[in-house]
Amino acid sequence: MSLTGQTGADQLRQYIERIERLEEEKKALMADIRDIYAEAKATGFEPKVMRQIIKIRAMDKDLLAEQDMLLSTYRDALGVPAE
Amino acid sequence: MSLTGQTGADQLRQYIERIERLEEEKKALMADIRDIYAEAKATGFEPKVMRQIIKIRAMDKDLLAEQDMLLSTYRDALGVPAE
Repeated sequence: MSLTGQTGADQLRQYIERIERLEEEKKALMADIRDIYAEAKATGFEPKVMRQIIKIRAMDKDLLAEQDMLLSTYRDALGVPAE
Repeated sequence: MSLTGQTGADQLRQYIERIERLEEEKKALMADIRDIYAEAKATGFEPKVMRQIIKIRAMDKDLLAEQDMLLSTYRDALGVPAE
């Protein structure tokens, strides 16, 4: 891609501006997400545990079951039982 | 926030689902951004340098000028001159 001609520079500018617009949208979404966590926290929910729940809900069921079992086994082995 | 009642559980579920929807949108945006970089790369532009340009364009002008000057000074000092 030659940048000496106008076409190359225009094309580059278009790519850059498309990415910048999407990055702006991403930033806005991330701000919205932060706001929801803040609102939930003000209501009395714990954001850290909410993040864990969101990860858990996104996991494959079998993988989750396996990890839960291992976690429980390891906790027992080290004397850190779940309540 | 008590989770023994239905209200607390419902409220928690609503927060979680709102965040999950926004996270999905964020994931879609990130895929779109990756696609544009891939398309630009196929056209002959270098994604790494495009990322640098996007950072540079987002910077405060004075800060950018200062960093450019320092970078140039440091390169000269270490014998790594810009072309």
